[in-house]
Amino acid sequence: MRLPAPVHSFASDNVAGAHPAVLEAIAAANTGTAAPYGADPWTARAVGRVRELFGAPAAEVLFTYGGTGANVVALQSVLEPYEAVICPATAHINTDECAATERFTGAKLLDVVTADGKLTPDLIAPLLDPARGEHNVRPAVVAISQVTELGTVYTLDEIAALAELAHAHGLVLFVDGARLSNAAARLGCSPAQLATHAGVDLLTLGGTKNGLLYGDAVVLLRPDLARRARYARKQAGQLASKMRFIAAQFDALLAGDLWLNNARHANTMAAKLAAALGHVPAADVLHAPQANSVFVRVPSWSIAPLQDWSFFWTWDSSASTVRWMTSFATTDDDVSRFAAGVEHLTDPAAHSHPKADAGEVAGAQKAHS
Amino acid sequence: MRLPAPVHSFASDNVAGAHPAVLEAIAAANTGTAAPYGADPWTARAVGRVRELFGAPAAEVLFTYGGTGANVVALQSVLEPYEAVICPATAHINTDECAATERFTGAKLLDVVTADGKLTPDLIAPLLDPARGEHNVRPAVVAISQVTELGTVYTLDEIAALAELAHAHGLVLFVDGARLSNAAARLGCSPAQLATHAGVDLLTLGGTKNGLLYGDAVVLLRPDLARRARYARKQAGQLASKMRFIAAQFDALLAGDLWLNNARHANTMAAKLAAALGHVPAADVLHAPQANSVFVRVPSWSIAPLQDWSFFWTWDSSASTVRWMTSFATTDDDVSRFAAGVEHLTDPAAHSHPKADAGEVAGAQKAHS
Amino acid sequence: MRLPAPVHSFASDNVAGAHPAVLEAIAAANTGTAAPYGADPWTARAVGRVRELFGAPAAEVLFTYGGTGANVVALQSVLEPYEAVICPATAHINTDECAATERFTGAKLLDVVTADGKLTPDLIAPLLDPARGEHNVRPAVVAISQVTELGTVYTLDEIAALAELAHAHGLVLFVDGARLSNAAARLGCSPAQLATHAGVDLLTLGGTKNGLLYGDAVVLLRPDLARRARYARKQAGQLASKMRFIAAQFDALLAGDLWLNNARHANTMAAKLAAALGHVPAADVLHAPQANSVFVRVPSWSIAPLQDWSFFWTWDSSASTVRWMTSFATTDDDVSRFAAGVEHLTDPAAHSHPKADAGEVAGAQKAHS
Amino acid sequence: MRLPAPVHSFASDNVAGAHPAVLEAIAAANTGTAAPYGADPWTARAVGRVRELFGAPAAEVLFTYGGTGANVVALQSVLEPYEAVICPATAHINTDECAATERFTGAKLLDVVTADGKLTPDLIAPLLDPARGEHNVRPAVVAISQVTELGTVYTLDEIAALAELAHAHGLVLFVDGARLSNAAARLGCSPAQLATHAGVDLLTLGGTKNGLLYGDAVVLLRPDLARRARYARKQAGQLASKMRFIAAQFDALLAGDLWLNNARHANTMAAKLAAALGHVPAADVLHAPQANSVFVRVPSWSIAPLQDWSFFWTWDSSASTVRWMTSFATTDDDVSRFAAGVEHLTDPAAHSHPKADAGEVAGAQKAHS
Repeated sequence: MRLPAPVHSFASDNVAGAHPAVLEAIAAANTGTAAPYGADPWTARAVGRVRELFGAPAAEVLFTYGGTGANVVALQSVLEPYEAVICPATAHINTDECAATERFTGAKLLDVVTADGKLTPDLIAPLLDPARGEHNVRPAVVAISQVTELGTVYTLDEIAALAELAHAHGLVLFVDGARLSNAAARLGCSPAQLATHAGVDLLTLGGTKNGLLYGDAVVLLRPDLARRARYARKQAGQLASKMRFIAAQFDALLAGDLWLNNARHANTMAAKLAAALGHVPAADVLHAPQANSVFVRVPSWSIAPLQDWSFFWTWDSSASTVRWMTSFATTDDDVSRFAAGVEHLTDPAAHSHPKADAGEVAGAQKAHS
Repeated sequence: MRLPAPVHSFASDNVAGAHPAVLEAIAAANTGTAAPYGADPWTARAVGRVRELFGAPAAEVLFTYGGTGANVVALQSVLEPYEAVICPATAHINTDECAATERFTGAKLLDVVTADGKLTPDLIAPLLDPARGEHNVRPAVVAISQVTELGTVYTLDEIAALAELAHAHGLVLFVDGARLSNAAARLGCSPAQLATHAGVDLLTLGGTKNGLLYGDAVVLLRPDLARRARYARKQAGQLASKMRFIAAQFDALLAGDLWLNNARHANTMAAKLAAALGHVPAADVLHAPQANSVFVRVPSWSIAPLQDWSFFWTWDSSASTVRWMTSFATTDDDVSRFAAGVEHLTDPAAHSHPKADAGEVAGAQKAHS
Repeated sequence: MRLPAPVHSFASDNVAGAHPAVLEAIAAANTGTAAPYGADPWTARAVGRVRELFGAPAAEVLFTYGGTGANVVALQSVLEPYEAVICPATAHINTDECAATERFTGAKLLDVVTADGKLTPDLIAPLLDPARGEHNVRPAVVAISQVTELGTVYTLDEIAALAELAHAHGLVLFVDGARLSNAAARLGCSPAQLATHAGVDLLTLGGTKNGLLYGDAVVLLRPDLARRARYARKQAGQLASKMRFIAAQFDALLAGDLWLNNARHANTMAAKLAAALGHVPAADVLHAPQANSVFVRVPSWSIAPLQDWSFFWTWDSSASTVRWMTSFATTDDDVSRFAAGVEHLTDPAAHSHPKADAGEVAGAQKAHS
Repeated sequence: MRLPAPVHSFASDNVAGAHPAVLEAIAAANTGTAAPYGADPWTARAVGRVRELFGAPAAEVLFTYGGTGANVVALQSVLEPYEAVICPATAHINTDECAATERFTGAKLLDVVTADGKLTPDLIAPLLDPARGEHNVRPAVVAISQVTELGTVYTLDEIAALAELAHAHGLVLFVDGARLSNAAARLGCSPAQLATHAGVDLLTLGGTKNGLLYGDAVVLLRPDLARRARYARKQAGQLASKMRFIAAQFDALLAGDLWLNNARHANTMAAKLAAALGHVPAADVLHAPQANSVFVRVPSWSIAPLQDWSFFWTWDSSASTVRWMTSFATTDDDVSRFAAGVEHLTDPAAHSHPKADAGEVAGAQKAHS
């Protein structure tokens, strides 16, 4: 077997481009002048679509440029600077946003070690009621990611239980929904069921990872939380002047089932990738994918050559595990070529010096390809 | 004369869409997967083009989603939280960004009243050396906008004089270049002359207002100022995951003369608008446009009807002045139709109740159109 | 006439030490152990005295270490990070606190140029209702200093007019009362009249400048504004562990008329100083003191020698004016010696080289003394 | 045995008053006027004493009002807003300062679970080099408390090992020295050995907990770290106007061995308390005190009655453990009376309803006393 030519990257779902329908929507919106900052008909229509999606006709919907910005705007809307956010240690807001939440809101993240990236009532209960007044920050938000950063998906009941406990203690439940569509596809339920009916108070809805060029949304399901939101978006540099182009993309995504089809496709491709890797002797798929990520243990000496061949980030080098993700744009061919490459590069027999350092192996690979 | 049908808005240059070549560049970049966050070939190429434009091969160039974000990232790169920015009272960072600079950097803006939106050595000299140690903030940045918010353009000598004085006192010179291209077009000089050779230390370069869908750039001409910049961009929520699409737009803008042609066209259209309005008896063009904005005094009773007919913001209601802007997309027909509309709506003879309230006049207009 | 020996400094009222009764109160409180952070009987008693002073039995009263801290805690209690404080350009919070308010609250100060350090309804009216939504910060607080930094005192009617206008627009009225006692002494009215009845919503009450070692108070006259205050005080590092010692000082100050007598004495001494300087040919008292500061024009060549002889800060070197302040501890002898020194050092005839540089003059002076 | 009358509180060392010599020093400094903000001879002298104590003649020494303020000023001096502080999960800055560090500096705390409140090279090594550039905060400070919040004391070697590792990775080592004197007393070494020679870069030195009324110090042993410190102190509201009174206290503390004697006495009293509690059957001293705190397991039903009798905070209610602290002011009689009270209130035989609720037991106690 020979190493396939360098392929599609499985590093993340943000390595994909934009869905063609999204580009078409942008081109269609590129007509004449339009009032900036969201006072345009595209924005009005897209806001309506988000409200409909969540069954929340009074929700405040604010489009932002990106996901970190959306999270910051949402959290700023509900946090005092002496308050705290309870989140999993693995939360994107805790590990991947350069402390933007702390920086912008002043709030502290109280991170909780979890088994699978998911908070549970038992895990958060001890943190809900600090006893010592102003000496401690005051928990105000329970923050979960749906899908989680470990690729797991909360069930509706799990979310509802968190919401109930949070509300009983005066906190709100926030969902980082960068991949909410993938969760909806997984659970076979609507965003309304997944968020509004389950007791979520506010969330961000990812667009970029589901086929847009750029654009995410802050959705304040409870309109009483919206007081600060528009100011926060502006102050955070997330208010697009040519807003119609974000809105047109969301309109294209949500007008029909594109959002769901894109997410479903990504999930299906992850399942296929896991299945294909199931046939690779040296690759150990850690658990069946719940959404669009696959976590795999591979020989540690193979990680650098694999990265050299097809870019992805190290996940946990001490455990020799990697994360590979699929997107709306991943094809069957991408999957099979990638699995073939993994098989080749993790096969000790195919390498004269299986424990050689990365540089040498990388050199060897290049000779193969 | 009859009122033309509602037209092209002259509210700002951000009411325009995107230049077709920019959309084509995005479509061309929408191929396969690409490493996110700027580790892609489009970004490398576009960074190179910016460096070339400014004759600054070692400059740190960071693309951002938007202009407020770019300003914040640039200023954060050079400010301590106890420092201050000297800027005109009319600066966009002072009046239009919801105090994002203060919020994100902690720095104070020391705003200076100017005649024409331009700082001068005389105006800033008294602020450069506060005598009272830690009781006062310490000025660290002189911030100018080129083109200014009042539509004026600094000459190369004026910029050099500010740079010289700032440097002599240990400050840096920052340019909010949301419309730097229009200034270059006006002055007939290169961005390198306008910034690098004139002594500017860091700037932002507007893309959105010159034909992009979205995207601006932070340009740290002095690489020694770059230490904090990447962290600041991430923490400010301005690091695009699908960076290739911002980069591809800048590549299209800067590869040839598109940036200059767009700016030149906008400036030309402003001159034409001013000329056309010169024939409108009730419209008083305050001064010849230097770039792409026209400031005009109109009868106060006509402002609301004019806004109702073609959206723009109030500029200075007490002085009965309005600002109208042109863009790369403004056409000769737009200008002549707009001037005709202004003539119609500012003509007392055409209105039976010239001092009627806005609502009534608006109603009357609609009957006319 | 000979130059008196270096004397009492008139640089500020904070150059004084502590009143003996205050030290006695501290010594008396230095008995046994006490619950920290304000849960002690001294604090309960002192809080009661402040409430009584302001006729506001439900007011939230929080002691802080110092004045900058008190201002920050008070303002944080009522400000969102996208809001603004309207204040005179000369306000201590604007010019002397190293932008602590902006830094801690995120809010912007909208500073207004005034004739005499006092805001008026006419001056603030144009700022109360920004028209442009989230592009601008939202004014939320009108901040005045009573006594002002220019030594002027608001009348009850002036405060009431500001309160009425602020409230009509949804803003609150804050008073930086570092020298509120001096204003009460001047006006012959109670703090309750001066603040609570005049419509003030929250204030800080200076202790340090009126005879304490250290200690100021945040007084939220409207208890509904108190929600954030305790957290803000802790987060701002202003929650004293050994709170009983601040409280004991306030108790001593407020138990009888010490606060008023101290302030009255300081005011009286300023009047005496102004009178004594009225006899100095080269010193021009700019206006009759309203509280405990005296603003004087002296020959510019005399300022450095005067500072060298008795420390004070430059006030306005371009206008050749200085500020001298009196305190509870200033004596008649201090005043007459100081006036004699001023007479000596501002007398051109007494100096062979009246335009000599400071160093030379200082040397000459030392030979005189 | 009967319950002793309510006694001295062992809740913390901040429940004590001030040492008489400290009050005398304040009284002695209460003479004439003095330049404010530290430009006075007391401050110069006290700064000299701190430098001498640490054998660091060029150290920047800044007095602050309190400990939270001192920590914030010190950390602000060395942190960028995108950086992080590695600290034990039990650190005072992490659990007891209402996130003042995050709020003021923007930095994130990376808290590490420890066995005994002490960081070790092994615990911090995995955090020193984040691999992902600007997506993560960048660790810049290793922060330890000496004495720790769990009453343990780092040896000189342990500190040196942390310093070496921190420096090798470009981080600085900060010590929260609220109880540094107690550590020096424990280890029988000088502060110079404990900090300067062991590689500490900057620290705070507690005064309040060692006999002052109020006052702590920021000590930047490396003068090159001092650039921001004075501004940070002012901006944090920690610059006392009547600085001479903090300085005079430090002068009294450090002029001879008062600082050491106070700390030694507190430590000795903790040892005596532990010994006395060793005779109480129901009180289980968890480990021999290393400084001035004693951690004890008592019957859970006894905690509320004990608190009702002599105030202290709950430490770990789930483990039924309490923390009792001694101070410079604790006497042998305080210890023996307290131990007797603990014996009485933890004796099941003395209580007819040992599991009665706190209220009932408290009532019963009051009848006893």
